[in-house]
Amino acid sequence: MEVYLDNSATTKPAPEVVQAIRETWEQYYGNPSALHHKGLEAEKLINKARAQLAEALGAGDNELIFTSGGTESNNLALLGTIKKLRQRGNYLVTSQIEHPAVYNVFKELEHEGYQVTYLGVDASGHIDPGELRSCLEQKPVLVSIMLVNNEIGSIQPISAISNILADIKPKPIFHVDAVQAFGKLAFQVKELQMDLLSLSGHKFHGPKGTGALYIRKGIQLAPLFFGGGQEAGLRSGTENVPGIIGMGVAAALNNLNLTENTAKILSLKRQLLGQISQNIESIRINSPDHSGFAPHILSVSFPGIKGEVLLHALEQDGIYVATGSACGSKKRTPNQVHRAIGLTESESEGTLRFSFSVYNTETEINYVGEKLKKHVT
Amino acid sequence: MEVYLDNSATTKPAPEVVQAIRETWEQYYGNPSALHHKGLEAEKLINKARAQLAEALGAGDNELIFTSGGTESNNLALLGTIKKLRQRGNYLVTSQIEHPAVYNVFKELEHEGYQVTYLGVDASGHIDPGELRSCLEQKPVLVSIMLVNNEIGSIQPISAISNILADIKPKPIFHVDAVQAFGKLAFQVKELQMDLLSLSGHKFHGPKGTGALYIRKGIQLAPLFFGGGQEAGLRSGTENVPGIIGMGVAAALNNLNLTENTAKILSLKRQLLGQISQNIESIRINSPDHSGFAPHILSVSFPGIKGEVLLHALEQDGIYVATGSACGSKKRTPNQVHRAIGLTESESEGTLRFSFSVYNTETEINYVGEKLKKHVT
Repeated sequence: MEVYLDNSATTKPAPEVVQAIRETWEQYYGNPSALHHKGLEAEKLINKARAQLAEALGAGDNELIFTSGGTESNNLALLGTIKKLRQRGNYLVTSQIEHPAVYNVFKELEHEGYQVTYLGVDASGHIDPGELRSCLEQKPVLVSIMLVNNEIGSIQPISAISNILADIKPKPIFHVDAVQAFGKLAFQVKELQMDLLSLSGHKFHGPKGTGALYIRKGIQLAPLFFGGGQEAGLRSGTENVPGIIGMGVAAALNNLNLTENTAKILSLKRQLLGQISQNIESIRINSPDHSGFAPHILSVSFPGIKGEVLLHALEQDGIYVATGSACGSKKRTPNQVHRAIGLTESESEGTLRFSFSVYNTETEINYVGEKLKKHVT
Repeated sequence: MEVYLDNSATTKPAPEVVQAIRETWEQYYGNPSALHHKGLEAEKLINKARAQLAEALGAGDNELIFTSGGTESNNLALLGTIKKLRQRGNYLVTSQIEHPAVYNVFKELEHEGYQVTYLGVDASGHIDPGELRSCLEQKPVLVSIMLVNNEIGSIQPISAISNILADIKPKPIFHVDAVQAFGKLAFQVKELQMDLLSLSGHKFHGPKGTGALYIRKGIQLAPLFFGGGQEAGLRSGTENVPGIIGMGVAAALNNLNLTENTAKILSLKRQLLGQISQNIESIRINSPDHSGFAPHILSVSFPGIKGEVLLHALEQDGIYVATGSACGSKKRTPNQVHRAIGLTESESEGTLRFSFSVYNTETEINYVGEKLKKHVT
């Protein structure tokens, strides 16, 4: 049996996505910037995908641009804001548990002379909006907080942050990395009221090499690339038409089935959580079953066991999991998020992340529960 | 009949490319950074593609990184060099006929205080290496010259430039935009001796959303994105595995059939050139049939005729051509390249670009020749 439980690293594209892309290769290969019919056709398909994504987010069609992925979206949001608002100050706020595609941008900005506060989190992995409030006297230009953490699935209080920032003048630009949240949580940008929000297609059963950035109407960014001026001048380069179409289809599918999908994923998480809690002693659950956590991520620490050894043991049984986020997994540096929630070194080293998708089944989870019990005990 | 003669804007992916990508969607969807088998599998496929591309270029495997396209490759090459060598000076050299993904980077750098010389071209669209020589006293940090021009197909004297630059100390970094050249001209990076070279997958029957940058061993760049540190730290972001695999297959196909393909494409160009010259009077051929021009681009000016009108007339017959490069075609600003080679306004407005691929046929070209004669006369 093959059980893929590394859906926070990347997902398998939905069959509907693959089908849509196939048609594009054959028929709709024109350059959207071309003046002829083949160009127009491609441009229309891009705009359809834009509308699909906008609908799923509750955004306007003119508030979304396409990028090559979550990393580019995050970098464009952060560096594009900094460049545009250079004269407004050099103080920035983010958290200690951001994905490297946000965290390392701030590290780079520190090298360039910016001053950055990295908000801490409590033992459950949640930031305290009150701590943000105490930073506001220093007039941050930009605040960036993720919606769902990629290691442990904790959901951050985005609405509370938006409310706090709404009273500040000039209002800091508020960016949200929603790469792990989209398709797993019901949210609408107009309710959460951020200025910028990043998405990655391959995290929600869309194609790799695709991403999007929501840019609230009126918010201005400087581009990272210069060239043909595509995507309203913010993202030059011939559009990845098949990828964009695939991401649009994936977004529409997610939107259509969101309630059903999240219920199913949550029930798979509960099932595995139950099996682990029942069968294995002395563990630490980093992603408990309550509303402060996303349904698709289950992080469990098995102290005294090497996570990597357990990962490879499970791999022999056809089970694919992670020790932490894919981006950091080969670096062998201490895990930033584990440290922030206060895991001991032994707990951190013995942590596995199980991440679920709607394509997983109860039978698969049973199998994983059994194999896990065997290897750990 | 449908005849696609806009292959310089974008190409249809090769059937072999589509097939390779299909398999990736289903089987090899892992994140290359993951520690388990599904990750390793994906990583191996990426490295296979890297080797395919390296072989076609005569580069080392460790001299190539993957990007999201030609625009990103050009931007990374130029901005990454500038950032790395900030302290070496602020003088840069490029040409008046670069693609917007190079030209507009230099325009941006001028805003940031850099001093840029834009080398002119003669009436055939070729720069004079002697003119470059006269810039060298000012010690340029960076020189960027394209291999094949995207509007008229003129081939620039890259070897001569490399030779001139070899004598300068410190040696300026030499970047070549080879987006229009790869797969259409036989060249090897070790012979042409540039430091950086940009490619775009969708220009040689690979997938959209893919590109590569050759970085000669020893040359250092600063990244444009910060994050997970993929691609030797130069291009963070989960790799577009299917796209990269597709680009690798496209590169291998090109490499295998290059002599045959370029001969076929040149014969199609000659055929259309012959038909146009024979049937239509008072034209200007901007891409004559000689060794200073690439085989796949034929630019012809029909003075007194609006290119856009002719384009749409041909479109009615199922023939897809361009008035100029796709990136500039919707802007309605004067065409930079046409101006540089001395076209009058009437000649520029009446210019069409026919660009060929190996999938075009003699029958198609006959049909285009006839329709063109009908519409112009």
